[in-house]
Amino acid sequence: MRDEKSTAIVLLSGGMDSALCLALAVKDNYIPATLHLNYGQRTQKKELQAFEKLSNYYNVKERLVVDVNHLSQIGGSSLTDSKINVAENAIEESTINNVPNSYVPFRNANILAIAVSWAEVINAKAIYIGASQVDFSGYPDCKAEFFDAFQNVINTGTKPETNINIITPLINLTKTDIVRDSLKLNVPIEYTWSCYQNDDEACGVCDSCLLRLKGFKEAEFQDKIKYKSS
Amino acid sequence: MRDEKSTAIVLLSGGMDSALCLALAVKDNYIPATLHLNYGQRTQKKELQAFEKLSNYYNVKERLVVDVNHLSQIGGSSLTDSKINVAENAIEESTINNVPNSYVPFRNANILAIAVSWAEVINAKAIYIGASQVDFSGYPDCKAEFFDAFQNVINTGTKPETNINIITPLINLTKTDIVRDSLKLNVPIEYTWSCYQNDDEACGVCDSCLLRLKGFKEAEFQDKIKYKSS
Repeated sequence: MRDEKSTAIVLLSGGMDSALCLALAVKDNYIPATLHLNYGQRTQKKELQAFEKLSNYYNVKERLVVDVNHLSQIGGSSLTDSKINVAENAIEESTINNVPNSYVPFRNANILAIAVSWAEVINAKAIYIGASQVDFSGYPDCKAEFFDAFQNVINTGTKPETNINIITPLINLTKTDIVRDSLKLNVPIEYTWSCYQNDDEACGVCDSCLLRLKGFKEAEFQDKIKYKSS
Repeated sequence: MRDEKSTAIVLLSGGMDSALCLALAVKDNYIPATLHLNYGQRTQKKELQAFEKLSNYYNVKERLVVDVNHLSQIGGSSLTDSKINVAENAIEESTINNVPNSYVPFRNANILAIAVSWAEVINAKAIYIGASQVDFSGYPDCKAEFFDAFQNVINTGTKPETNINIITPLINLTKTDIVRDSLKLNVPIEYTWSCYQNDDEACGVCDSCLLRLKGFKEAEFQDKIKYKSS
């Protein structure tokens, strides 16, 4: 627990991991400021709703929603390019050398760069990001070494008087750990959205749904959102 | 000189430094692909015109112009925030510990992140950026150590099969060196735009104009663009 209150930016996609990050920033005695990106992902609207509900729940005053058109302009991912299908039941195939087609090229570097720009202006001391390198390690920009390298970019590339730290509290947690910790901290799981498809109910078969369902199963708890296939 | 032709992304703001970078990428036997950012800077229109003229001059086929709203949304710089005046005759005051108010927080990290995302998709091998740490070293994200750190982020955060290198050919050049090299390589200097003010003719008194004029004076050559104060 820290003594003095300072601001932490929380990258809040609206997924379960980012919701836990927000709860942890509050627990760590930071004043949270939430940042959300619309980057042309299929589920943009659902994610933005989740962002607003979660920010309201935690009484977040400072919020920034950024429209990032270039990631969909650039393409190369099933999340931003409607010509590339979202893979089903592909989770087992993902390995460290097999990057899934949902990978948005260098997305986390783009997100962190925006967060750091904002942090410099609002004088935030920390940036919480809910990446995990355990369960689904196919994304190169979700590994500890990537965040360590980015920390060094922040240290060298910002004003000398700033002191901004990337905090990755979930980096070594499994999805099951994340479900358990979210329950312990009373995170409103029912407000979160993880599915890669853009439907009213979660599809239950994309990588993200499969991983979430596995987490809940292993945590022996029933998810609070609805699935098409359930 | 390299043997096989591969693609290099050139960050082409439209200023003199970026124009020289484009000429150097061509000289280095790369196929240039040019990237330009509209980020709400005062001189957005002038810079975009310069980008198009320079890209045409060098027969660039692959071009990407990205609208980045978040830097002006975030603010904190005289270049993107009309409430902050562009400093005049402030060049002498700039030191390593005195960041000028034209500094756009963490801009180069944002630009490089976009360039790397694009490089992954079009399979580019290099990213040319015309930063110099010599003359005007007040910007923290223009130093060699910043680019070295960012290279490490690329190495850790992109697909294993990619091999993308940041190239900073001007990093240790003075503005005078840049003017001389541009003349040697027949860079069409008359197409470039450096001024931070948004007028028909360059103001001649902002940091960027002063530095440019100093470079031409020391290179003993007359600039080919028009200045209000000349």
